[in-house]
Parts: sequence; C-alpha cells; structure tokens
Amino acid sequence: MSDGSSASKWFSNIRARFTSRNVEPNSVINPNFVSFNEIIVPSKESTLSNSKHVSFPVQNSTNNSIQSLSKTQTSKKVDDIDDYDEIENSLLDITLDAGVDTGTLADKSKGTVDFFRTSAATKLPALNRTHYSDWSTIDWLSDVARDGLRHQVITEQKTESLWRRFISYHDALSGWFCVLLVAINIGIIAAIVDIGAVWLAHLKNGICLPSFWLHREQCCWTSRNNTYNEQLLVQCEQWHSWSKVFHIENDTNWEYAVNYLAFVVLGCIFASLGAMFVKMFAPYASGSGVPEVKTILSGFIIRGYLGRWTVLIKSMGMILGTSANLILGLFPKYGQNEAKKREILSASAAAGVSVAFGAPIGGVLFSLEEVSYYFPLKTLWRSLFCAMVASLVVKLLSPFENQHLTLFNVGDQYRWFYFELIPFILLGVLGGLFGALFIKLNLYWCKMRKRTKLGQYPVTEVICIALLTLLVTYPNPFTRISMADLIRRLISSCGVEDTSNLCNYARNVTSANDKVDSAKALSGVWASVGLLVLTLVTQIGLFIITFGIKIPCGLFIPSMTIGAITGRIVGILFEALVYEYPTFFLSAAECSKADEECVAPAFYALIGSCAFLGGVTRMTVSLVVIMVELTGGLSYSVPLMCAALVAKLVGDALVKEGIYDAHINLNNYPYLDIKEEFSFNRTTAVDLLKSKQEQQNEQKAENVTQPPLITLNQDGMSLHELTSITRRYPFRCYPVIISKSMPYLVGIVSRRDLQLVLNQAKSRSNADNDSTVHFTRTKRADTISTVSSIKLYRLLNRSPITVTNDTPVETIIDMCRKLGAQTILITDNGKLTGLLTKKDVIQYVKRKKEQK
Amino acid sequence: MSDGSSASKWFSNIRARFTSRNVEPNSVINPNFVSFNEIIVPSKESTLSNSKHVSFPVQNSTNNSIQSLSKTQTSKKVDDIDDYDEIENSLLDITLDAGVDTGTLADKSKGTVDFFRTSAATKLPALNRTHYSDWSTIDWLSDVARDGLRHQVITEQKTESLWRRFISYHDALSGWFCVLLVAINIGIIAAIVDIGAVWLAHLKNGICLPSFWLHREQCCWTSRNNTYNEQLLVQCEQWHSWSKVFHIENDTNWEYAVNYLAFVVLGCIFASLGAMFVKMFAPYASGSGVPEVKTILSGFIIRGYLGRWTVLIKSMGMILGTSANLILGLFPKYGQNEAKKREILSASAAAGVSVAFGAPIGGVLFSLEEVSYYFPLKTLWRSLFCAMVASLVVKLLSPFENQHLTLFNVGDQYRWFYFELIPFILLGVLGGLFGALFIKLNLYWCKMRKRTKLGQYPVTEVICIALLTLLVTYPNPFTRISMADLIRRLISSCGVEDTSNLCNYARNVTSANDKVDSAKALSGVWASVGLLVLTLVTQIGLFIITFGIKIPCGLFIPSMTIGAITGRIVGILFEALVYEYPTFFLSAAECSKADEECVAPAFYALIGSCAFLGGVTRMTVSLVVIMVELTGGLSYSVPLMCAALVAKLVGDALVKEGIYDAHINLNNYPYLDIKEEFSFNRTTAVDLLKSKQEQQNEQKAENVTQPPLITLNQDGMSLHELTSITRRYPFRCYPVIISKSMPYLVGIVSRRDLQLVLNQAKSRSNADNDSTVHFTRTKRADTISTVSSIKLYRLLNRSPITVTNDTPVETIIDMCRKLGAQTILITDNGKLTGLLTKKDVIQYVKRKKEQK
Repeated sequence: MSDGSSASKWFSNIRARFTSRNVEPNSVINPNFVSFNEIIVPSKESTLSNSKHVSFPVQNSTNNSIQSLSKTQTSKKVDDIDDYDEIENSLLDITLDAGVDTGTLADKSKGTVDFFRTSAATKLPALNRTHYSDWSTIDWLSDVARDGLRHQVITEQKTESLWRRFISYHDALSGWFCVLLVAINIGIIAAIVDIGAVWLAHLKNGICLPSFWLHREQCCWTSRNNTYNEQLLVQCEQWHSWSKVFHIENDTNWEYAVNYLAFVVLGCIFASLGAMFVKMFAPYASGSGVPEVKTILSGFIIRGYLGRWTVLIKSMGMILGTSANLILGLFPKYGQNEAKKREILSASAAAGVSVAFGAPIGGVLFSLEEVSYYFPLKTLWRSLFCAMVASLVVKLLSPFENQHLTLFNVGDQYRWFYFELIPFILLGVLGGLFGALFIKLNLYWCKMRKRTKLGQYPVTEVICIALLTLLVTYPNPFTRISMADLIRRLISSCGVEDTSNLCNYARNVTSANDKVDSAKALSGVWASVGLLVLTLVTQIGLFIITFGIKIPCGLFIPSMTIGAITGRIVGILFEALVYEYPTFFLSAAECSKADEECVAPAFYALIGSCAFLGGVTRMTVSLVVIMVELTGGLSYSVPLMCAALVAKLVGDALVKEGIYDAHINLNNYPYLDIKEEFSFNRTTAVDLLKSKQEQQNEQKAENVTQPPLITLNQDGMSLHELTSITRRYPFRCYPVIISKSMPYLVGIVSRRDLQLVLNQAKSRSNADNDSTVHFTRTKRADTISTVSSIKLYRLLNRSPITVTNDTPVETIIDMCRKLGAQTILITDNGKLTGLLTKKDVIQYVKRKKEQK
Repeated sequence: MSDGSSASKWFSNIRARFTSRNVEPNSVINPNFVSFNEIIVPSKESTLSNSKHVSFPVQNSTNNSIQSLSKTQTSKKVDDIDDYDEIENSLLDITLDAGVDTGTLADKSKGTVDFFRTSAATKLPALNRTHYSDWSTIDWLSDVARDGLRHQVITEQKTESLWRRFISYHDALSGWFCVLLVAINIGIIAAIVDIGAVWLAHLKNGICLPSFWLHREQCCWTSRNNTYNEQLLVQCEQWHSWSKVFHIENDTNWEYAVNYLAFVVLGCIFASLGAMFVKMFAPYASGSGVPEVKTILSGFIIRGYLGRWTVLIKSMGMILGTSANLILGLFPKYGQNEAKKREILSASAAAGVSVAFGAPIGGVLFSLEEVSYYFPLKTLWRSLFCAMVASLVVKLLSPFENQHLTLFNVGDQYRWFYFELIPFILLGVLGGLFGALFIKLNLYWCKMRKRTKLGQYPVTEVICIALLTLLVTYPNPFTRISMADLIRRLISSCGVEDTSNLCNYARNVTSANDKVDSAKALSGVWASVGLLVLTLVTQIGLFIITFGIKIPCGLFIPSMTIGAITGRIVGILFEALVYEYPTFFLSAAECSKADEECVAPAFYALIGSCAFLGGVTRMTVSLVVIMVELTGGLSYSVPLMCAALVAKLVGDALVKEGIYDAHINLNNYPYLDIKEEFSFNRTTAVDLLKSKQEQQNEQKAENVTQPPLITLNQDGMSLHELTSITRRYPFRCYPVIISKSMPYLVGIVSRRDLQLVLNQAKSRSNADNDSTVHFTRTKRADTISTVSSIKLYRLLNRSPITVTNDTPVETIIDMCRKLGAQTILITDNGKLTGLLTKKDVIQYVKRKKEQK
C-alpha cells in the first residue's frame, strides 16, 4: 500500500511496535511540555544530567522515513535507520552548485548545508530537511520556504530534459495526485467499514441464514413477505434472531433471555476486541481523533499518530479521515515536509467527514471551521476534490444505496412556519445547555479517570462500560436498535399506515384534510414520550462516561441521537399545544393557511439533533451544511442555522470551549487556539519573558538549573566552547549576537546543524578544540575551514522573527498562529533581550486563562 | 436612516457632492499609487514643492465623520468640519487618567495622546483614532489593538454602575446588533430591488392594465385563461403588450415594429437614466463592486465608496451587499475603526449574495472564498447570521414566492449517471476556456476604453451599448426575455405537454416508458440548437463589451446564461449521440437500467452555467454551494463540483486570475492577493529595498527628489529641525533611531501625531525653535515640557514590525497579508537599513509579475 513495504516487513514491525508500546498511552499523550526554548532530546548523545524534567518518549519512527531528492544518494532502504546517521550521511553527499552564491542560497532555504564545499559537479542545491522530535513544534515558515525553493529548482530545470519536464509537472500536480489517492483510500476504507459496521451491529440481534455475510436489510432484500416491527426494522424468513437460531419457541421468557444474552455477550466481545486491538497496536486510535488531528494541524509533531496501524485499527471501529500517511511515501515532498503534510491532512479530514456522513461540502467546511489551522485557499480546493472523490468511491462501492448519498434522507417533505422558530430557538437553547453540561461532566469523568486507578485498566473499563450499556439498552426498544437507526426513526414522519405507538394519532383516513383532528395524540404517543424520556436519560448518562474511553469512537451520532430524542419530545409537546389552542396567537394565522400538517414532530427531531451537535461541538456553518446534506432538505437551512447559532451562543456563554478544545486542554496538547481572540491586559513581550523567568525559577526549586538565555558570539568562540554549550544546553537553537558587550542580534543557528558541522569539522578537517568559530560573512575564497578558524556564516539563519520588548502579546500570538513562527526573538533597540518559543506562548496563554 | 441626519442636511450635501464630483470617475479610481513610505497629502499645509507626483484627489468626506467616545467632548455636528481642526480640538480636550502609567498605556493603544498632561479628572484613556487618507492602507495591528483596549476599558468599568454594565453588554453584543441591522436593511433593499427589477424588465414588453404596478406574472395571477408562449412566458387578458396598448392589430408588421420600438426606446431610457444617476451621484456604484469591496477588505481606504449614495444608486440597478455604512453611525466602534468596519463588510457581502440568489450558505462561502481578506472565524458566524436574517427578510417581503428561497428551483428531479461525468468534464473545460477568453477580451476592451476617447463619455457609451443590445436581442426570442427567464427556460426539462420547438421530441405519450424513442430529437430541436448558437454568439459578444461600463451590473447571471446555453446545446448533442448509439460502451450499461430519461439536456444547462460561472470567477466551493442552493438539487453536488473544479483548473492554466482580480489589476487597486502563493527567486528584503530605490531613481529623473530614508534621532533634534522634516517629507511616519552613528532602531513615530504635538508645543508652552526634542524614556516627573526640551517618549510606537535584511520576500508578504502590517522596518544586526510599506510590497509584486 505504501512505499513498497512488503508483508514480511510489516510483521517484523509488529514486534517492534509491541516492545515500544509498553509506554502507557496516557503518558505518551501527556507530554507535560514544560519547555524552555524547546528542549530536544538528542537520540545519540549520552544521558544529559540537566534534562531530567523532559519526558518525551523518543520513538524511532519507522514511518517517517527520510528520503532525499538528490540523485547522488543511493536509493537504499532508509527504514529502521537512525535518522541521525541518515542525515549525517546525506550531509556528506550533498554538494553545492559552485556557480551560485551558496552563502545566500543556503540561508534562503534555511536548511542545513554542507559548509565544507567540495568542487563537485552541480547538483540540486542543498535541500536538507528540518528534523523534528516528538511533540515539538514545526517551523511553518522554513518548511514552506524550503518547499518553495525545492519547487523552484525543479521548475528551473524543467527545460533541461524531457524527464526533468515530467518531474516538474509531476511536482506541480503531485498535490492533486496525492489527495486523489488519499480520497480513493478513504473511500474504500469507508465503504468496507460501513458495510462491516452495519453487519456487526445487526449481528448482535441475529444472523442471516444461510447467507450469514448479509446484514439485516440485505438479507430481506429479496424476500417477499417482509414485515416491520415497532422500530420499523425489517423482519423476514431468512433473518434469524439468536433465539430462532437455537430453536427456542417464540414469545416465551426464554426467547427474551437468549436474545438478551446474545446481545450482551456479543456486544461485550466486540468491545473488548476493539479495546485490546487499540491497546496493543495503536494507542492513538482511541477516541474521535479530532483533538489529535487539530493539534497536529496546528503544527505539532505526534509521532506514530498518522501511522498505518492507527488507520487500520481505527478503521475497525470508526471512520475518521486520518489515513493521510498511508500513501505519503509515494510523494517525497509530502513525506519530508511537515507543513506540506498538513495540507494533505486537512483535505483528508474533509474526506473523512464526507464519507462518514455523505456530506462532501459539509466535510470541507468541517475541516475549515473545526479542524484546520493553517488553511490556505489551495487547501480548500484540494479538500473539496478529496471529499468529492471519496464520496464518489463510497457511492460506487455501496451498490444498495446507489442514489442516496445522504444518510438520513428525508428530502424536502417538511414545511415549517415562522412561529415555529420559537420552539426551534428553544431547541437551540436546550442544545447549548446540553453541550455545556456534557462537556463539564465528561471532563469531570475523564479527570477522575486519570486520577483514579480506573485509567490504568483501559480495557477493563471498556468492557465494564460496554456491559453496562448493553444491559441497560436491550430492554428499551428505542435503545436496542443502533443510534443511526434511532435517529432515522425519530426524524421520519408518521405515515398514514404507521400503527406504531409513536404514531398513535387520532387519524381519520377518510378525511385526511382535516389536519387538526388528525394531530390529536392518543395514549400510544404519550407512552412513547415516556419511553423517550427514559431513553434520553440513559443515553446522556452513557454518553458522558463513554466519550473518552480507549476505543475508537465519535460524538456526532450520539449527540445527534440525544438531540433527536429531545427534539421529538419537544415536537410532540408543541404539537399538542397547538392542537389544544388552535387559536394560539402565533400559530392561528399561519396554520390555518397551511394545507399540510402544521407541527411535524419529526422535523423537530431533525432540528434537535442539529442543535445538540452544535452545543457539543460549537460548529455553525459546517454543522448546518452537514445537516442539510445529511437530510437532503435544502429548505431547512434557515431553521437549522437558527438552532445552530443559538446553541453555540448559549453553549459559549456557559462553557467557553467546545468538546474538542476541552479534550485538547485535558490532554495538555500544545495547541494554540486559532479561533480565540485573545485580549491580555496590556501585556507585552517583556511580561511574557518575565512570566517565563518566573516559571524557570519555580523549576529551579526542583534542582533544574536553567540559564536565562544562551547566546553565541558571532566571532571568536572556540570549538570546545561551542561543543560544550551544545552538550549542556540542548535547546533547539541558539541566537547569535555580535558580542556579549554588544548584544545586537545577528541571527540564529540550530543546535542540530551546529552539532553535525562541529562533529564533521572535528573528524574531517584537522580542527582542534582551540579553533575559533566565526559566524561572520567572509569572501568566498575563505570559506574552506582551516585549523585555526571555522567559518559558519552559511549555517546562520539571518532572518529570525524578531519583535521588540514592547510588542503586545496579541501580536506575538498572531505571529505564532498566522505566520507559524516557532521561535521569536525579543530585542530592545536592536539588542537581544530574550527568546520565546511557541510553547512558551502557549504556556503563558494557559496560565493567564487559569488565573482568570 | 443613519446618525440622525435630517433630510435638509441630505439635500445640502447633494450640492457638495455635485461640486466635488467634477473629478472624472476614472481618475478617482486610478490612484497611480507610486508611493514611498505612503506619502500623504496634508490638507492644511500650503503646496509642497516636492509632492507633485502625488495625484490623490482629496475629498472632504462628509460620511466618515469622526466621533469620539469621550464624554467630555461636546456632541457638536462634525460634518463639513475639516478633520484636522476636529482632531486638534479633540486632542486638547482628551485628558489622561493621572493614576495610570500613561506612558505605557499610550504606547499599547498605539494612538496619539495629549502628552501635555493635565491634572483633570479620570476619563477614558486617550482612545484616539488613526486617521487615514484616501487610498492609504490601514494598520490592522493597531486598529485591532485599539479596539481590544477600548473593549477592555469598557469591560473593566462594568462593575461601576448599571449604565456601565449596560454599555459593556451593548459593546459585547454590538457586533451582532450591527449585522442584524445590516441584514434587515439588505433584506428590505433586496426585496424592493427584486420587485422593481422584474417590473421594469417586463415593462419593456408591455404593461398590466389597469393595475400598472403589477408585473407580468402578478398581472396574470388571478386570470383564468392563461396561455404560455414559446418562451413559457404567461399571456393573459390583463397583460397588454405595447402594440395592444396602442390598439394595433395583431400579427401585422406594425405590431412587431411598435413592440420592437417600445422595447428599444424604453430599454435605452432605463439604461441612460442608470448611467446618469451613477455619473452624477455615485461614481463608485458602477460595475459589480466586487473588485472594490475586495480592495477595501484587503485594508485600503476608498473614501465615499461605502456611502449612502452608492447604496442608493446601486440599489436602483443591482444588488450587492455594500450597504454596511448605512447604519454604522449607530455603532461608534465600527464607525471609527477601519479594521472592525471590515468585519461587518465581510458579513454584508455574504448577505448580499444570500439575498441576490437565495443562497445563504453559498453567500457566506462566497464572502470567505472570493471577497474577504482577513476572515476570523467570528466573522464566519456573523456572516452566517447576517445571510440568514437577510434571506428571511426577503422571504417575508416577497409574498408570492413564499416557500421558494431558490431562484432556479428544479429540485432533485434529474438523475445522472457515471458516464455522464465525461460530458460534465467537457462542460468544465468549455467553462474554463470561455472564462479565459472572456477575461482576455474584456480586459482588452476595458484597456481600449481607457486609452481611447470612449472612456471620456461613459454615459454615451452606456446608451450606445444599450441600444446595440436592445436592437440585437429583440428579434431573437431567446434573448428577448430576461436572462434569468432564459436560464429558467433552459434548465427546465421538457414536460409531456410542452410543444415548444426546444422540446420537439418524438414523444409517444401512450408508451411513456419507451424512453429511448422519446429521446429522438425532431427538426424543432435542431432549429432551437441553431437559434441557441446564435444566441450564444450574441450574448458572448455583448457580455464582453458590457462588463465594465459605468452602470451597476454583475456577472453572475450573464455568465450563467452563456453557460446554460452551451450546456443545453452540449446536452442535446450528447442526447442525440446516446440515442444514435444506444450500445455506446459507457452509456449502455447504465442507461438500460434506468427507468427515466437517460440524458437530460436541461441538466446539462445547469452544469454548464456552473462551469461557465466557475471559469469566469474561479470560485469552487462557494460556487457549488450557490448552485446547489439556487437549484435546490442536493444530489447534483458531485457533478457540480466536477464541473467547477475542471473549469477552475483549465481557466487557471490559461489566464492566471479570475475576472475580479483582473479588474483589480486593471484599475490599479492596491491589492495584495491573499490566495496567491508567491514564489520569488530567492529574493530578500534587501532586493525589495533595492528595487524600491531603483524606482525612486526613475522618479528622480522626473525632478522629484526623494532621500533614501528619513530618520529621526531619539535625542537632541531641535524643534525647528523636526518641523522642517515633517514639512519637507510628508511621509506617514518616521523611524526613530539612537543616532546617525548608531542607527539602532528605537521606534516609529507618526507624522500626524508629531505635527500636532509640535504645533501644540509651539503655541501652548513657550518652546522656541531651538528647543530640543527627546524620544527617550524619562521619569514621570520630567514629562512636562520645558522651554529647552520637549519629551515625546509617549508618542513613540516602540513595537513596529521589523525584519532583517535577509528575510525572504515571501515572509514579508505574509506579514502584510496575515498580520496586516502597514509599515515594515528593515534592520541588519539591529541597525535600521530601510523602511517598506505595504504599497511598496505590492508594487514589487506587480513589477515581478510584469517581468515574467
């Protein structure tokens, strides 16, 4: 499926995974990112005495293999090679175009170059990659610049040969190819999961004999005398409930007991299998994945998250568009460039929602509104393309529902009146209240899980919750069926021949036009309302304790179910109100004009599911579009918008963040909210530095000594001095200044590059510890290092992002968010006064919020 | 309607308008913004010898009146008062909270403060506004910061009193109130325009007697024996064609001649009236408005564009959501803050499309994808709200089309098959080709108009084009009806009883199921195809010369019309193909399964209109959503996406920009494309500065002397020296450095603030020309100016955006686009080396593009 890996390699990887997965998921997820200048853990160096407080698990990723575009490099397999060796080797191989002013060139690409110039032939200019450790921030600016440079080089060489021209076109179009492949993959996975999930869900209730591979509806497809039960599920000869399989007589307590038992046992088996798979193979596959994808898209590295195993395991439970990495191996530019990778991931998220709900446009908007961080318009188009192809693939692969892209198709059958906006707004309010309540309680439960012993036994927890769920839900006919079926039931109107309890109205078939009488609810309806209230309570309780357990699961369908139940109840009550008081000041005028049902409770269920999903996730535009696409009812956009907006406003007023952001906070993911408009009490960069200093002082109490700021002089530092600094202070980069007495900022140098080059210098040229290192500009003739001096001008990134002492914090935050800056240098009248990383900024924002 | 202006004031303003409108529109629109450091033209100073090359027409705006939050200020009418006097007066009045460290405070707000501290009571801190001259860039950073500060002050005072609390809530919610009012306004205007436009369009053909105020359809609403003509337009007794009004016999040449004459004469009258209104009252009301709104949203000031008159005049012709300014007077924070104003304007654009096409979600996406620049997610929600309310208002006000929010409602009546994606892609290609062709030719025509004498007589041009259009379109029955009617005709399927030429199929009513036979096109269809080709040629020709004339007009409907014609032709041809070769390898399998029409030419017209609109505007997601909402066909999203994406790709490959961007370039608007991914050949800030220098040298040849960079020393400059600098070099701001020998950047000071304070110093305190001016920090006790020294520390903005010499141009562009930076200072090792404005960057980008 991806970069030519054979089955044998896969299996050899499994072992590696098993051994490296001893880390408990929670500790992996919680990096506790107290960092000063993004401390990195070197993978080769011996243990560092003063980096004790850093707890990132370093995983040798086998997926994020590093490949080079350079043709000089042999195409040896790079899997399982330590990245460090790899880089070092490639560094030795890469040669520079002797004709170009490489000094400038290297700085523009902001990458590492082999500064020991060789006189070799012209090759690609040194396009080295930035290397990120786990949970570190990526540097958008340099990644994007690097890709631009790469693309430019390829474009320039276009005219050289036909092959080069092909390479150039391939490069220009590879984004589209890549999303095309992603889309096809997602489509196929979705179709398989779709079919599998329905089959498994029905398997709890029975089996199709002799064609056991068919699910309930497919089973009864060809049958002639189908009947429908109370929940409108199809019944036929071929479909055997478990009691029937075991030849137990109908309508006995035994029958009930056997079916109940089969339901519970099978459900528990599925759940525990799922949990065990997750625990063993892909700890990241649990949950909805949205918080993680959001964090990754905001520019942090979570190793192993976007791996094959996550996709595979996740696919076994739920669909979410995270399969991006699968085929990234085919496109080196995406494999190597973290910023580029994120563009594809945004598109994948769109495709994920597109296939999960049959809502391609809604998927694109979901990716834009909820998930994505850095969303250039090019990504919008790619996302649309990706969502479109994925939904086409699903449509092609699901022969039974050919023309129905929509999951809960009701079409434009309902009419609504202006006075109904009042109950719709009420539903919005309820949705907002529920969202706030759910977030509060779910967070409380998740925190408790973390604190208590519960969190240490995730599989046991899953089984317990599954058992509870299955036991509670079987007796209630509304909860026995799957949630999607329940939603479908609740948003369906009462047909004329529908004799179920829920539709027990005083209908007079002969005078169908006498709509007011037909709206009189009889006892059956009220019994249903009672049952629905019970269902509501059960579902809310289960939902709160379920979301966050270690199994792939989403929250769209549960939220919508709870909303649909509430909506239907409200609808029935409102219908009764309008029936009792037909001259009701608002309804009278409009209802009397209508030639149809005046209040359709099923439509309220629809609005309710929109409002509740909105209350939980705080989406607006994307929610409305998803709902419109789900139901196929374009004329509902105004009431849907109304409900979504009110739910958001009410929800935001009670609990500031949506569930995804709340879980990001809960897991301490280093995420800087792009939506929030921060307003800090007139604080500036100086205050931010001060706050950072204070925190360091607190750490000092814990015996961790941190110097305020490590700088390098541009001239005259010895090799030994530099080496010891890079060893003692494992920061990601060091600012270079003119001298300690003249601390004017010259540029910034990355520790990684510095170490590589210093090691090279030591081993290759005959430099010794007393050789001086210079970051100053020299003429080209001087660039060869001598024993006495090493010239590192080209290693310097001379365009760091700088702000002044007095820059408002808001501007600094915007630089992190909008420009994607990773490191920001603070100056005062040109003098360097401090250094801030994105994580420092995130920490500051967090602490300020906590203080409030 | 807005800030309490009475009718008498309005009329007195008209006079002023008339006199100030002598400037030819084109010269207003073309600012020829060759600027170094945003030269501003002082309105009070005597003529400057060296600002000759600046050609901005200075208009004393009566709309953008300046109001202050400060309660100390009397509420005197500020209209028609020179802004300069106004600011100066207010500066004297504003007092500072003596308890706050005003030094810090003022800098945070980045505004001007009266640095001559008085001991007056505590008031709001000095919230002075930045003042922008016409065609200047706004400073997002400071505007946003200013608003944050303002909001914070209000929030902090919340607990003081009930009134303050109310003020605080009002402030927090005023954004929503404001968009609500905008939405209602837009809705009302749209409804009126809607009704008026239809009435006028029908008036060309006839009149309803005796109820002349009814348009054609309303006229025949109550009539019993309605007939429909070839174009499916209703005919009834009450509806009198002009020949009937004048009692001319039917079916004579005279009848035709009279109707033709009435058509042409009335059309010409309407067109010339429109053109004259535009010329006299609102030169900005011409065109679609999208390029102008885009430019304004990107952060430039176009005075008078968002005025009442533009709205009024524009409303008389076309709808576009630019009515924002109408009610901004009610919300001081929006009236004063250019950045905030743009948020509302984004929402208005969404509402404009929402009402124009009945596409609320599409409107929001249009605003996001095509129009908006700086689009925080808060604006997304507001836009959605605005679009929703506006569409509700229109729905309420249009009693005849109550349930039809959709303009071209066809519902989900068409089915499409996978093999049809091939002709859909073909339509996409045609759309892309047409878009490229149209943009090329339209630009050529517009350039010719500018170069030749044609451009000097806009009204004559309008009348000529109107005359030509009317003469050409009347004889052809397809063009005689309005474009919207034509689209509606073309996307309607052929009903069983439809006997028009276009539907002249070999239909057999008795065996309706024999679909293949019924698809045989007879001679009538082919005659229609011929006529459609003729129509196509006419429409394309007219469209090219029409778009860009000085009358309010859009391009959505014309592009869609041309697309619908092409689509219908392609559809008929493809239908014939499938009919002739029913075993055609692709169609055979799918068509035989279908129980409906296999190829529906009307559906091709729909796809065609999407593709052609996409080719012209290059929209994707918003286009698909608008089309889905327009037609009410959710199941069409995949073919629509297909067509839109292909049209965009093909179009982009041929002509890089969409029509809106092309017109922005044509008009030389200072717009920096936010969508484009710039890639400059490894150029940095230094190259940008060099290029700027070169340009200045070119200007030097024209006897304009420009010094490279004007800086102020932080210490020791004399009052006289400063005054003469501000007089000689009318730049918007000056960087302050430590000294000429130590050119380390300290901060930046605005010319406007400096002049005000220096003038004050001269007049109030007894400072003389030899007094020295200091920008250095002093203790609070020193802040009072003495004769010998004037302390201006608090005037300094100490957090300008700075980059280094080696910063790539791409990063600088991103700072302008994403951070909204107006002025960027260039440093090298802390030393100031140059200054760039957004306009410099735009110019650079332009020249680089031209060089390519």
